[in-house]
Amino acid sequence: MRIRLQRDIDRLKKQVVSLATLVEERFRLAIRAVECRDADLARKVIIGDAEIDQKEVDIEEECLKILALHQPVADHLRYIISVLKLNNDLERIGDLAVNIAQKAEVVASKLELPIPFDYVTMSQRAGEMLEESLNSLVNLDLHLAYRVCAQDDEVDFMKSAMQLQFAEEIRKAKEEHIEPLIHLFLISRHLERIADHATNIAEDVIYMITGEIHRHKGFEYHHSEE
Amino acid sequence: MRIRLQRDIDRLKKQVVSLATLVEERFRLAIRAVECRDADLARKVIIGDAEIDQKEVDIEEECLKILALHQPVADHLRYIISVLKLNNDLERIGDLAVNIAQKAEVVASKLELPIPFDYVTMSQRAGEMLEESLNSLVNLDLHLAYRVCAQDDEVDFMKSAMQLQFAEEIRKAKEEHIEPLIHLFLISRHLERIADHATNIAEDVIYMITGEIHRHKGFEYHHSEE
Repeated sequence: MRIRLQRDIDRLKKQVVSLATLVEERFRLAIRAVECRDADLARKVIIGDAEIDQKEVDIEEECLKILALHQPVADHLRYIISVLKLNNDLERIGDLAVNIAQKAEVVASKLELPIPFDYVTMSQRAGEMLEESLNSLVNLDLHLAYRVCAQDDEVDFMKSAMQLQFAEEIRKAKEEHIEPLIHLFLISRHLERIADHATNIAEDVIYMITGEIHRHKGFEYHHSEE
Repeated sequence: MRIRLQRDIDRLKKQVVSLATLVEERFRLAIRAVECRDADLARKVIIGDAEIDQKEVDIEEECLKILALHQPVADHLRYIISVLKLNNDLERIGDLAVNIAQKAEVVASKLELPIPFDYVTMSQRAGEMLEESLNSLVNLDLHLAYRVCAQDDEVDFMKSAMQLQFAEEIRKAKEEHIEPLIHLFLISRHLERIADHATNIAEDVIYMITGEIHRHKGFEYHHSEE
């Protein structure tokens, strides 16, 4: 029975890594679609979302099957519960990549409008947090998971800075640039939410390893924007 | 053992109802803080968030304790898993109420600026969805849960309409109104996300009752904004 449980958990691990890899790839494509004003690439991300949704449902069903069949305890139980939660975060990151791609499609035709925010830095920071949270998951690296949690404030700060810049830009914007500017502003908010979900994943990894619920530990967790 | 399990589940139910009631109350206060330009009320919602966070952690710990202690199967297992998930949605709705309250604080001093969107209708619709999703949870009402899921598109549509109105308003806005207008626009996005979380709760109730995963069932689930 224990051998079967381990075999099922090993299979589940592979499914999680496969979803995580796919979600990270879609995030990178969405970011590139904005940077390169590439509407075709954006479309690819949008169309590909159904694949992520299916993988999420498969992982959830696998977790429920393992719980019902093996009634795991201790470490194994904690592992399954953590996967159930971070599975949801991975799917949401996939949705946010789609949201970014939808806006990339709109701004793709506005080649003359530069991105008025420090979009590259923000997308890099969010991308690093995502990558590190996934690495902490794959390698069960507690140190790395804590590092991701500590970075969340930085991206929150960037988001607030972009809100001010947006207000500034919109004041002097040409009539026809107002809508694409709103889309670019919303992209910065999606990026911040991706960083939030990466933080959630890192928190789940911390729980997975230590059994400690790490949410709401700092003041910033209570009051920062979702 | 079975009697103890039932007793623990009954206690868990009470905890969930208590959190749900609190979250709904905070949502109503945040909405009222915007409508009445009441900065004191907004502050109350912001300060009260720690209480919601604590209740969420307590419920999660209770779920994990029940899983480890009783190793429930079938209906009971499904109940615990559903609670683990919707617990998270409840806490996020609490966060979004805080986000709305933070913006209510900013716009409270701008009495001369009318809310340029149909904010009342949108907050009513989101509030109804939240109320109905919580009723479907408390009464295990499958019919009501399906109805909540069917309403999600309507709020999505309102959000898109508000984005167009925002672009329109910002074009003709006075310099000093640009920032409060951005805050009001972001409130409409928070409302739409509250409706999303209400839909998630209804989906969890459907799973709780039927064992069927109801997510990603319609095209709108794949491609709508988070």
